Amino acid sequence: MAYFENIDKINYEGSKSTNPFAFKFYNPKEQIGGKTMEEILRFGVAYWHTFTMDGSDPFGSGTMVRTWDKYIGMDLAKARVEAAFELFEKLDVPFFCFHDVDIAPEGSNLRETNQNLDTIVSMIKEYMKDSKTKLLWNTANNFTHPRFVHGAATSNNADVFAYAAAKIKKGLEIGKELGAENYVFWGGREGYETLLNTDMKLELDNLGRFLNMAVDYAKEIGFDAQFLIEPKPKEPTTHQYDFDVATGLAFLHSYGLKDHFKFNIEANHATLAGHTFEHELHYARVNNMLGSVDANQGDPLLGWDTDEFPTDLYSTTLAMYEILKNGGLGRGGLNFDAKVRRGSFEPEDLFHAHIAGMDSFAVGLKVAQKLIDDKVLDGVMENRYKSFTEGIGLDIVEGKTNFHKLEEHALVLNEIKHQSGRLEKIKATINQYLLQAYAGE
Amino acid sequence: MAYFENIDKINYEGSKSTNPFAFKFYNPKEQIGGKTMEEILRFGVAYWHTFTMDGSDPFGSGTMVRTWDKYIGMDLAKARVEAAFELFEKLDVPFFCFHDVDIAPEGSNLRETNQNLDTIVSMIKEYMKDSKTKLLWNTANNFTHPRFVHGAATSNNADVFAYAAAKIKKGLEIGKELGAENYVFWGGREGYETLLNTDMKLELDNLGRFLNMAVDYAKEIGFDAQFLIEPKPKEPTTHQYDFDVATGLAFLHSYGLKDHFKFNIEANHATLAGHTFEHELHYARVNNMLGSVDANQGDPLLGWDTDEFPTDLYSTTLAMYEILKNGGLGRGGLNFDAKVRRGSFEPEDLFHAHIAGMDSFAVGLKVAQKLIDDKVLDGVMENRYKSFTEGIGLDIVEGKTNFHKLEEHALVLNEIKHQSGRLEKIKATINQYLLQAYAGE
Amino acid sequence: MAYFENIDKINYEGSKSTNPFAFKFYNPKEQIGGKTMEEILRFGVAYWHTFTMDGSDPFGSGTMVRTWDKYIGMDLAKARVEAAFELFEKLDVPFFCFHDVDIAPEGSNLRETNQNLDTIVSMIKEYMKDSKTKLLWNTANNFTHPRFVHGAATSNNADVFAYAAAKIKKGLEIGKELGAENYVFWGGREGYETLLNTDMKLELDNLGRFLNMAVDYAKEIGFDAQFLIEPKPKEPTTHQYDFDVATGLAFLHSYGLKDHFKFNIEANHATLAGHTFEHELHYARVNNMLGSVDANQGDPLLGWDTDEFPTDLYSTTLAMYEILKNGGLGRGGLNFDAKVRRGSFEPEDLFHAHIAGMDSFAVGLKVAQKLIDDKVLDGVMENRYKSFTEGIGLDIVEGKTNFHKLEEHALVLNEIKHQSGRLEKIKATINQYLLQAYAGE
Amino acid sequence: MAYFENIDKINYEGSKSTNPFAFKFYNPKEQIGGKTMEEILRFGVAYWHTFTMDGSDPFGSGTMVRTWDKYIGMDLAKARVEAAFELFEKLDVPFFCFHDVDIAPEGSNLRETNQNLDTIVSMIKEYMKDSKTKLLWNTANNFTHPRFVHGAATSNNADVFAYAAAKIKKGLEIGKELGAENYVFWGGREGYETLLNTDMKLELDNLGRFLNMAVDYAKEIGFDAQFLIEPKPKEPTTHQYDFDVATGLAFLHSYGLKDHFKFNIEANHATLAGHTFEHELHYARVNNMLGSVDANQGDPLLGWDTDEFPTDLYSTTLAMYEILKNGGLGRGGLNFDAKVRRGSFEPEDLFHAHIAGMDSFAVGLKVAQKLIDDKVLDGVMENRYKSFTEGIGLDIVEGKTNFHKLEEHALVLNEIKHQSGRLEKIKATINQYLLQAYAGE
Repeated sequence: MAYFENIDKINYEGSKSTNPFAFKFYNPKEQIGGKTMEEILRFGVAYWHTFTMDGSDPFGSGTMVRTWDKYIGMDLAKARVEAAFELFEKLDVPFFCFHDVDIAPEGSNLRETNQNLDTIVSMIKEYMKDSKTKLLWNTANNFTHPRFVHGAATSNNADVFAYAAAKIKKGLEIGKELGAENYVFWGGREGYETLLNTDMKLELDNLGRFLNMAVDYAKEIGFDAQFLIEPKPKEPTTHQYDFDVATGLAFLHSYGLKDHFKFNIEANHATLAGHTFEHELHYARVNNMLGSVDANQGDPLLGWDTDEFPTDLYSTTLAMYEILKNGGLGRGGLNFDAKVRRGSFEPEDLFHAHIAGMDSFAVGLKVAQKLIDDKVLDGVMENRYKSFTEGIGLDIVEGKTNFHKLEEHALVLNEIKHQSGRLEKIKATINQYLLQAYAGE
Repeated sequence: MAYFENIDKINYEGSKSTNPFAFKFYNPKEQIGGKTMEEILRFGVAYWHTFTMDGSDPFGSGTMVRTWDKYIGMDLAKARVEAAFELFEKLDVPFFCFHDVDIAPEGSNLRETNQNLDTIVSMIKEYMKDSKTKLLWNTANNFTHPRFVHGAATSNNADVFAYAAAKIKKGLEIGKELGAENYVFWGGREGYETLLNTDMKLELDNLGRFLNMAVDYAKEIGFDAQFLIEPKPKEPTTHQYDFDVATGLAFLHSYGLKDHFKFNIEANHATLAGHTFEHELHYARVNNMLGSVDANQGDPLLGWDTDEFPTDLYSTTLAMYEILKNGGLGRGGLNFDAKVRRGSFEPEDLFHAHIAGMDSFAVGLKVAQKLIDDKVLDGVMENRYKSFTEGIGLDIVEGKTNFHKLEEHALVLNEIKHQSGRLEKIKATINQYLLQAYAGE
Repeated sequence: MAYFENIDKINYEGSKSTNPFAFKFYNPKEQIGGKTMEEILRFGVAYWHTFTMDGSDPFGSGTMVRTWDKYIGMDLAKARVEAAFELFEKLDVPFFCFHDVDIAPEGSNLRETNQNLDTIVSMIKEYMKDSKTKLLWNTANNFTHPRFVHGAATSNNADVFAYAAAKIKKGLEIGKELGAENYVFWGGREGYETLLNTDMKLELDNLGRFLNMAVDYAKEIGFDAQFLIEPKPKEPTTHQYDFDVATGLAFLHSYGLKDHFKFNIEANHATLAGHTFEHELHYARVNNMLGSVDANQGDPLLGWDTDEFPTDLYSTTLAMYEILKNGGLGRGGLNFDAKVRRGSFEPEDLFHAHIAGMDSFAVGLKVAQKLIDDKVLDGVMENRYKSFTEGIGLDIVEGKTNFHKLEEHALVLNEIKHQSGRLEKIKATINQYLLQAYAGE
Repeated sequence: MAYFENIDKINYEGSKSTNPFAFKFYNPKEQIGGKTMEEILRFGVAYWHTFTMDGSDPFGSGTMVRTWDKYIGMDLAKARVEAAFELFEKLDVPFFCFHDVDIAPEGSNLRETNQNLDTIVSMIKEYMKDSKTKLLWNTANNFTHPRFVHGAATSNNADVFAYAAAKIKKGLEIGKELGAENYVFWGGREGYETLLNTDMKLELDNLGRFLNMAVDYAKEIGFDAQFLIEPKPKEPTTHQYDFDVATGLAFLHSYGLKDHFKFNIEANHATLAGHTFEHELHYARVNNMLGSVDANQGDPLLGWDTDEFPTDLYSTTLAMYEILKNGGLGRGGLNFDAKVRRGSFEPEDLFHAHIAGMDSFAVGLKVAQKLIDDKVLDGVMENRYKSFTEGIGLDIVEGKTNFHKLEEHALVLNEIKHQSGRLEKIKATINQYLLQAYAGE
């Protein structure tokens, strides 16, 4: 316990606390709709943003001040594990997530890399025994190394396909070893820079083959984690194959994978694709494909993935609304795929940022549950769509009509009566619910 | 023949011509890859942009000067038919396209509207007898009238669903009557303004039911046109259900409609969705879903559908490349879903604009065919992906491998050798082909 | 009082009220920082969006249900005045704003148009005698009519320049007659569709001449309103000359107009230009050019001006922060340049929407004032920039240094110590202030 | 001469050449409008993208294969100089550009850094004696090092301001030593991440002071290079102070710097700011502020600076049109601020890419000169604006009118006659000129 000396365990102190390291709104044991906040808000810490990234950007080198940076190689990897579990405990978070390269350095060949991984995985497993923090998901980084310059499962080079497969194989084994609840596939280089040198059909077919083999191997080793596709429209490639949830869904349909995958939806990826966060959650939900969430936010005026910690209470409210309507996230969770800003380089900022994110989702949960309890939006829906519960509307929904009958109906219609959509009033109502979330406490 | 008095029939006069009303590059009878330009470039005139729209925009009223605007009501509708066939003949275009409301005014009720349609459809049919110009596709405008304020097939109001169905029913009958090669579904109001008052699941289910009924009805009346979904991401709604080809494909999969539809891809809709035009064409093509094309272009710095006439030769070249690789468009065509600018309000501009578009696609065709003949991009592909034609790569493609074998392969890999993607050189080559398209003529 | 029969005068009933037509947060007489809310929040109703627009969009015709739409011509214009003052009184708003064409129809020539205006202006003047509602600003619509197809003051046609000038002349006279506090210039068609046919230098020079003549004429007639430029980056033109505040400022500098104008800043125009609303306000403020505000909001995922009623409390808070830091808006105000959605077509929605906007700015005011009172951001600033209050920093600020001295200082620097920017913590603090705005009431 | 062994000196071989390492269109000695291509197209190689960058991106490590990468420290710096002059000679380029950190590594303190610079500058000076390649401009990198995390001249930390000044001082001395024709200021960190912790007024004032001191110091040492501001709207910061040319112009006006600076305009920065490249060039030109050009291109569908080599012939044509209309670039040039794609990692790609860029600008030059010679656009302008050469229009331009006279004119206007803007025809004409650029050769 030496990496974050100045930080004590974070407690809920309520909104009046002036302790900068206290939860203002997140109260793990508070009951919301019959469960505790902690049970619903399955928060996860992202290993890469919290323990590995250094604050560099395309125009600047690293700025982060980290107590473990005095170490190198495997010593650094071990120090990070220690720091990680210290932070997990102090934050009292139930989950964490990692890529293979986050936890252990690559060796000079795959065998050595795997040995490095084995060493650290054993260490993590030991630490997990004494910790409440579990592995929400792990994944393989098949995008940073130059070998993936032209893709991984969609590389033009069969050796790379094999290498990528070997890394996923190891990842699935690690996931099993550590009891991961999910396994995530983010195709960082699965896309194209230009169509001019890309055989998209072959690449997509190969991706289909790859994922089918992954499904087979997980079954073979008895790793029953939920498999998740994480869509992103672009960056680093010009066009990613998993553009958004709908594109991913079409792909899963085409390659017979729909029953084996759900989606891990990231807020900032949604907005880069031209959707709201809640759109992607909602679309996945109504298609029964909502698996897990990368909880962050982007800057709508910037065209790259800023991976900010989530603080927009509208966004957390609407996200929690979708999640509650989904009956929760099941084995999924809310992974903070978020990084402190380059200018927030002090270790304390890691805590400020996670607290900000956890508090923001706690508020979102509370407001969303109240909206549901009071049937605010459900009431709107019931009223708006009631024409489909009777008469011709019911016939439509029950499949008892056809173009002949519908035309007959239309021919004798006099005036069609509409109701206002009342959007302005609904938005005002959301504001009132938001402001009342902590009124009176 | 009195609507475009100053314009004679447009002929090919070649690139040195200074006649503004001549084709500079489009030579209908020129052979390209064994077919004539005319056979490959199945150009269509969009009735709405050419004969109906008046140049108004959200900040300005109509500017277009049209000789038929002295008429009103059904007389106006008839004058437009006359003007249309005059323009078709002068432009020598093989196809046209329309929405129901483009050709005939709505009556005071559906029956009257249908009567108006019948009158004009009869007139069009007469004109078609003496004309080479055929109907590429027709469609129903289920978005302009206030009744569609909350959607058509996805309205919250069952009466509207019925009304929309009746309009499609009539549209299918008209399509059959006029021998349309395709029938297009663009869901102008099928989407949402806000999720806060939208039951997306019910709306998508209803859309699925609606389209299945359309398929049934077409079969019933023996209308064998190709059915086309036209994706668009937004505008007029905040989020359209047919966001892009991939989203449409996921929908068709989910509702059992995949074998009954292809896509009508519009360039400007592609760019609004964050894709290049050629991406959407390519993605549709490799999924065997490329049906037809709305040939226009957008302004990448503007966030709305500008529907410009296509003049970007890069775009027409890459579009024609995809189309040639598709073996042509089959029953589809290149519909100029494009409008002259508000400032291009003179009748002559309609000809300048169509000539510009037709010439641009002619150049695109010629360059694309030459790229194919010289195996420029095919050569790049063959070289880049050759590792999948032998050894482990061939095993992957033939489904003869698994994660065990792939890991074995990866564990003994020494160095992975990559080749440059050579994008800069490929782009320079495209430029050379473009500039040489008409060199020496 | 017959246009909004079902609506009574709107009162503040506090956040617990369930009356849909009550202010939940806007309490006109509540003291904030020594003034009443009403004094600070100089709300204005936009005549065009509230009394004139019909809900049409580029893909749909009008949907709005308005009791005055049974009238036509001057009768309609008069009915709108009656409706307007009824709404003003019921909403208890201190200001309104209009374009010339909003209040009176154009006649068959300019003289007739001016007569129509005179009639309605007299009527409005009468109504104003019995009303607390004053004219925040008026302006001339020099963009809708086809004569402005190629611009107004920047038209290529000198007749149009003259016509536009005549309309502004009349506008200044009307402003004087009605006691307008400001006069706004929004150059709806002052920009270009393409550089290919545009003489930008001549057009900008003409715009400079035009505005100088406007300044002269106002002085001549003794109209002492504040003159305001309203920047917008694009739409309807491809590129507007008043792109954003900075572009406007460069223009004012270049044409000797800087001392005669301030800016009217619209939230949605800011975001279309790639700025936050608060950026534009702040930039104008620190340049002493913040004049007035068009209070609305856009959709960051849409590329056109949606002109939504403002409901985002982050945005209203940061806007009010800038306004309070500016010492208020002086003669300016908060004009709701916002329209109810096309689906919100009932008269009641006009009230819901204005209440939503007024409440949102009331919350913003309260939170902003509290942030200022508690020196939340001021404290951050003081701490961050303290190096400029002493030593070399003070020398820099006082202009007592040069590159020699600075180099000497740099050469002996050991380590440069930085502090974290603490963005995540600051954002969490803003959330706490927001949530506490109405806690305990 | 050992760094690019396989590449011989690049010669013009014309468009039919199949040699990938030949100029297809750039013929240095070809006369265009009375000058040679070489004289007009003052091409520069960007040291950073060509000799320093390694192909890393936010999601991937370096991929570039460079023969000099076997060296480290000062040896690497020296090897790069050797490689640079080898490439300059083989490409036959007249200019190069660099940041201080591109040519020499930073030492452990400023003094050591300056010594490293002195060593390399001496070496470069020696090489320049035997080379035709001159220094177009140099600049200081005040953005990569962590000390600039909160800005340089706009840092909140006075020590950083001093450090930044010392680096610019050294840069000016180096520029003088090497005979640089220009000195560039790109404020990579001069902007803000958030307004919430930013004192924009102080920061802008400091930037004004900083640049004034730079002007003074250059005068003091007799360095008469042209000073250039390089605008960019965002990235790495959320909002850069030099957003675009107009924003830069407003700043220069405000701080008394207008006569001391021009602009260095980068294509990709223009598009990120919501402008076309030609807009920024044109706007700078008509304000007499066009200094130099960073010749690259972006991807309109991506939201970050892709810095691609320029290959879009529309863009190079319109850029050259502005440059020719400007009477050339004077002391400025066309610096390829462009990097080979991460997948184009072979040394040969550096040549392919530069050839692609040089050929593209050669075509652009040729087409633009022909457009000018044939008065294509000038003819359009003359015709469109002729109303300002007589009557009321001439009075307007000559400042002989006022709102009274203009109103009188408007009151007696009957119909205002407009001409079509003919955009579609103009675009078709541009295509014809483009395609004919090399026809017949």
